[in-house]
Amino acid sequence: MTGTFRQEKISKIKVGVLGSTGIVGQQFVRMLNGHPWFETAALAASPAAAGRRYGDAVDWMLSGGCPSPAGRILLCRPTGSDLRRSGVHVVFSALPASVAGEMEEDLSGSGFRVFTNAGAFRMHPGVPVVIPEVNPDHLGLISGRESGEGFIVANANCSTTGLVLALKPLEGFGIRSLQVATFQALSGAGRSGLPALRAFDNVIPLIPGEEEKMSRETNRILGRREGGSITPADIEITATCCRVPVRDGHLEAVTAELEGDVDLSRIKRAFHDYKALPQRLRLPSAPRRPLIIRGESDRPQPALDRLAGTPRSARGMAVSIGRLSLRGRRLRFVLLVHNTIRGAAGTSLLNAEMAAARGLLDEGPSEGFRKEEPCGS
Amino acid sequence: MTGTFRQEKISKIKVGVLGSTGIVGQQFVRMLNGHPWFETAALAASPAAAGRRYGDAVDWMLSGGCPSPAGRILLCRPTGSDLRRSGVHVVFSALPASVAGEMEEDLSGSGFRVFTNAGAFRMHPGVPVVIPEVNPDHLGLISGRESGEGFIVANANCSTTGLVLALKPLEGFGIRSLQVATFQALSGAGRSGLPALRAFDNVIPLIPGEEEKMSRETNRILGRREGGSITPADIEITATCCRVPVRDGHLEAVTAELEGDVDLSRIKRAFHDYKALPQRLRLPSAPRRPLIIRGESDRPQPALDRLAGTPRSARGMAVSIGRLSLRGRRLRFVLLVHNTIRGAAGTSLLNAEMAAARGLLDEGPSEGFRKEEPCGS
Amino acid sequence: MTGTFRQEKISKIKVGVLGSTGIVGQQFVRMLNGHPWFETAALAASPAAAGRRYGDAVDWMLSGGCPSPAGRILLCRPTGSDLRRSGVHVVFSALPASVAGEMEEDLSGSGFRVFTNAGAFRMHPGVPVVIPEVNPDHLGLISGRESGEGFIVANANCSTTGLVLALKPLEGFGIRSLQVATFQALSGAGRSGLPALRAFDNVIPLIPGEEEKMSRETNRILGRREGGSITPADIEITATCCRVPVRDGHLEAVTAELEGDVDLSRIKRAFHDYKALPQRLRLPSAPRRPLIIRGESDRPQPALDRLAGTPRSARGMAVSIGRLSLRGRRLRFVLLVHNTIRGAAGTSLLNAEMAAARGLLDEGPSEGFRKEEPCGS
Amino acid sequence: MTGTFRQEKISKIKVGVLGSTGIVGQQFVRMLNGHPWFETAALAASPAAAGRRYGDAVDWMLSGGCPSPAGRILLCRPTGSDLRRSGVHVVFSALPASVAGEMEEDLSGSGFRVFTNAGAFRMHPGVPVVIPEVNPDHLGLISGRESGEGFIVANANCSTTGLVLALKPLEGFGIRSLQVATFQALSGAGRSGLPALRAFDNVIPLIPGEEEKMSRETNRILGRREGGSITPADIEITATCCRVPVRDGHLEAVTAELEGDVDLSRIKRAFHDYKALPQRLRLPSAPRRPLIIRGESDRPQPALDRLAGTPRSARGMAVSIGRLSLRGRRLRFVLLVHNTIRGAAGTSLLNAEMAAARGLLDEGPSEGFRKEEPCGS
Repeated sequence: MTGTFRQEKISKIKVGVLGSTGIVGQQFVRMLNGHPWFETAALAASPAAAGRRYGDAVDWMLSGGCPSPAGRILLCRPTGSDLRRSGVHVVFSALPASVAGEMEEDLSGSGFRVFTNAGAFRMHPGVPVVIPEVNPDHLGLISGRESGEGFIVANANCSTTGLVLALKPLEGFGIRSLQVATFQALSGAGRSGLPALRAFDNVIPLIPGEEEKMSRETNRILGRREGGSITPADIEITATCCRVPVRDGHLEAVTAELEGDVDLSRIKRAFHDYKALPQRLRLPSAPRRPLIIRGESDRPQPALDRLAGTPRSARGMAVSIGRLSLRGRRLRFVLLVHNTIRGAAGTSLLNAEMAAARGLLDEGPSEGFRKEEPCGS
Repeated sequence: MTGTFRQEKISKIKVGVLGSTGIVGQQFVRMLNGHPWFETAALAASPAAAGRRYGDAVDWMLSGGCPSPAGRILLCRPTGSDLRRSGVHVVFSALPASVAGEMEEDLSGSGFRVFTNAGAFRMHPGVPVVIPEVNPDHLGLISGRESGEGFIVANANCSTTGLVLALKPLEGFGIRSLQVATFQALSGAGRSGLPALRAFDNVIPLIPGEEEKMSRETNRILGRREGGSITPADIEITATCCRVPVRDGHLEAVTAELEGDVDLSRIKRAFHDYKALPQRLRLPSAPRRPLIIRGESDRPQPALDRLAGTPRSARGMAVSIGRLSLRGRRLRFVLLVHNTIRGAAGTSLLNAEMAAARGLLDEGPSEGFRKEEPCGS
Repeated sequence: MTGTFRQEKISKIKVGVLGSTGIVGQQFVRMLNGHPWFETAALAASPAAAGRRYGDAVDWMLSGGCPSPAGRILLCRPTGSDLRRSGVHVVFSALPASVAGEMEEDLSGSGFRVFTNAGAFRMHPGVPVVIPEVNPDHLGLISGRESGEGFIVANANCSTTGLVLALKPLEGFGIRSLQVATFQALSGAGRSGLPALRAFDNVIPLIPGEEEKMSRETNRILGRREGGSITPADIEITATCCRVPVRDGHLEAVTAELEGDVDLSRIKRAFHDYKALPQRLRLPSAPRRPLIIRGESDRPQPALDRLAGTPRSARGMAVSIGRLSLRGRRLRFVLLVHNTIRGAAGTSLLNAEMAAARGLLDEGPSEGFRKEEPCGS
Repeated sequence: MTGTFRQEKISKIKVGVLGSTGIVGQQFVRMLNGHPWFETAALAASPAAAGRRYGDAVDWMLSGGCPSPAGRILLCRPTGSDLRRSGVHVVFSALPASVAGEMEEDLSGSGFRVFTNAGAFRMHPGVPVVIPEVNPDHLGLISGRESGEGFIVANANCSTTGLVLALKPLEGFGIRSLQVATFQALSGAGRSGLPALRAFDNVIPLIPGEEEKMSRETNRILGRREGGSITPADIEITATCCRVPVRDGHLEAVTAELEGDVDLSRIKRAFHDYKALPQRLRLPSAPRRPLIIRGESDRPQPALDRLAGTPRSARGMAVSIGRLSLRGRRLRFVLLVHNTIRGAAGTSLLNAEMAAARGLLDEGPSEGFRKEEPCGS
């Protein structure tokens, strides 16, 4: 079926990126470069930058340099009219929290399909927070919409994404409570989020809002969808989220209290064998294995494992797990997730790939929508 | 009483440092410089270095430079005869694990009072592991010895010391189990323990043996002494110990399950009011408050708080605690301990100060001991 | 004479600090704490913060914590009326460049003695840029003023200060040209000057304006004063100024072309023997030796040597020099200067101490000045 | 011609790597993975490790993980018999200096073609030190050998390689003298060359032997070959080599005194237009442009530019140049070279590609050689 889907793709779907100059925006641009299904047609930034070449305006921070085709694109404003002028009706949003809410609502309201990394709507009943390997059925929240109507699909925050991917295969064993301590990378604070003197030779034991998000979003994603609503899971989560002087890659030390007795080999197997819809659909950004079990006693490590994931198009999309031990019903492990790839742009992109594979992006915006704001306005 | 003790100190007690050129050895040298009760009379290193000036042989790594008086001392061998020749019968040991066991046993066997930071004897029934604020009564394990007999007093490993200091005031609330994730500094791995490329831009989620030590030593120190033996406490501890790129200061994220209901204000008060024997005796290296509660939401931080402790002679001797929260019976907090001061040399020194204040260092070695290996041999 | 001066100091001189919450402001606060001649009477910050306790408002970043007495001071506005209300007519300025010019001019115009670390007036003909060990005679630029008139005395920028201190003893050998590469610390960019992601695992080969300053200020400070004007030296300086991931301490690799033949031992002696007015006057913040020659082949190093300087009140005030070699007339050496102490607050303070010792701070502001802007306005 | 050469390559040349588990060894393994001309047939390490799978024995430190095919190879001893058993007669050497001399001499003496990164023979009259873009004619030193005879081709040390690549296009302007300060990365010190505590928050202003190498090797590589000997250039070089806390990428601040007048635009053009033999031959690891001029005022930076070089197979093979300025005849610029790619394994590989393209690797070892030590011994 995947093959069929691919062969039908005669022309690529034109997409835009909002907030394209930030760290997550740059990951979107990097991952969309040469993408088999999507074509980067619009890059939006703050209105002040509109009209400049992306390559000139961006303060590129990822290794390997800004992809040349993207570098030549002229920045547009993050408005419906500008995006539509570029032929775009699918957008990825890496907007800062302060503006994401209003802009994304406007865009989805006028027919755009928005895949957002921003947190504004993660608790909104009409917006699914999706990790394709975990809760693809939550996309059902938007399936009832009329043809041509826009929608918003959110991904979870970075540390939550890693955690939930590791929890999913454990669901069958019953998870009563979780204690999590995170070692979060600098890039999670954004391009200029943290002054060097603060971060250097230091651990900062607070990431505002993060602990609440981990608890709330984890339970929502692991929740059960019944029709158009989600009943959240009720795992008690105690998280302590800390910033450490590491460029990329969030490491998390997790202790989980399970509900019943189980032996460690079954847990290892559950992690190792875990595959889900994106793997079956062979989505372009899906890692062959979403979870990689490290047998070495001192792994995963950010410097070595943050780019885990094969094939090359899925680098940074696999979560690494190590230091598994079980005492009674208390399971301890350490996980590592690349915070701006799997924890942000990558999952958003995977969400869009899954939506495309399911035909949710095929149709153009509805007539009504088109009339409302004519091309060329 | 303290005053009395001090006034009697007409001459200082001559002390030696074993393993004096390592990081912990350097902290001993630094803290002993200008000490009101102790005089550094011997600095020992590997036999190959014996005879060189300490200042020339040491690769000094602490800020502020090697103290001049210590720098002029000629290194001796870590043997009883060399130490005795310098008039020393009290030694601080910062020996590497590989040689500590045999050397310390030999020295204590021939009458030396050994205050050791090494782990060799921490589980030995005749060796108390003491944190003066927590279990000074464990010194009782050595009090039965005959006059002139040597002994070994150990301090706990670095991360355990911070943890136990924070747990002591909680004892009254009943601690059922603990989940701890540690963010441990580079200096804990020793002067050349960790290659730069391993540590840089990385978190290493394994510190060999550390998790077992935290569990074992914590329960021993919090154990009850009955005569000459210790009945350990039985707190279930799940620790995940990680190395982070920070020079000094171990941060620990702790979740404790308490036995009964309690409100947070009582816990805060217990931390804040906590004072113990070293404070009452006004030992020279005792911090006025062993625990410092930080009210800010993002503290403690290694870069800002690792040197906590007043007066100046107790810098780095206080443990900082922050991020206190309580949900049901689950208490969460973050603590910070300076690993080579309070977590190593400083507690060893405080142990010796307490032993001195109790008269355990006053007497010289016994006649028998003196005859055995005559001065000048 | 020094002694005499000190004995006369029955009451301390009340001083204020402008821009007191930044990194350099904090160094001023730290160094003024317990100062034998000066008393911190006013701490100014942006008007928005006025009225808050310094200890609550400051984001303290130096190890050891904010000094308690300073912490209790209520912040005032950086205006003449506020400062005067605190009885202050001597101020230290750590103002950001953007506002320093206007404020400092206003204050000096209305009678304040301003010792500034800001760059605004470093090329102003009426403002001496002084390093007390190098060009104390440049203070003459302000000596002609009428009694009660204010003035501005600047110190040089951080990397220049280290360089000029090392060049002064070489003046006798004739310096034709200089090539300098700097390895500058993060704290030089201010409290939030550099985002962590920029600084981390990186070298940034540009510090805007720094190379020009090094050339211009070096020649001005080494220039000859004739009456009220300075004839700058004309050393050709090629500087490449880079930021490296080090917290404190600017290291500089210097190659100097000398005018005549000389042997290395004479140069070493010139460095080693170098003492100047502050040492003779025994100013409180003067290091016993302003230059410390390191004989080891791999020194100075920021981590080990940035706090060089004795006595304790002069920690960080000595410049360390190493790796001296001479080939023909080309002299190569490496120097290290603590950028926020000797390179900023410390030299400013030393300037004020020298001015005090010379009686330039004794007199109160003139009557005219007082009338102009009455107390209580 | 290149095309012809490629089409003839029906089977790949089997190659081995000596010292394959170190950092440079790992770069060889990484760059040889999927190489169009060479096939990794033998990986040698210390005899103790022989027989273990490379993937199990190596402490892999490069991002992206150990290539699977290499991971499956069983380590052999670095001896002629072991290598020959694998069908190898071309070897890349990343041997540590202490053993490189003897081993490489033995191997070349018994017919192996050795491309070495070790420094043992860089000043040996019969061993060319080659950077393919700079002095391919120096390969002439080995062309006179008999068929089947072995040889050694060295590449220069890491910081020299970057410098010489930047100097080559300047040769025409006449270079009288150079002042260089280097900011060298941690990986240059090897996998465990530098303890973390030494490197962290520090600059170490000494890299033993490096300054002499820069001077000696630069002049040798820029020297003129006449028959079988090289007359070195005689540029006076004053280098100050420092280690900074950066993972990869050596940055160098260079001041060059030119012999005649020139304008900056000509120099820029010379840099920009520079292409040489590897580019013309389109060697697989040759970057399209060996020098990349950065127009931004704050580039190159290690974090952003160390992987410069297109196509993908040449990532890290281009040297970036920025901050160009000229005052009189004094040219200043900053360059950046990836020390373990272009500065080590990459140039060695490029040397082998050039040798292959010239037919120097085609012939098997001579009969005599084969007889001497029969296969299967």
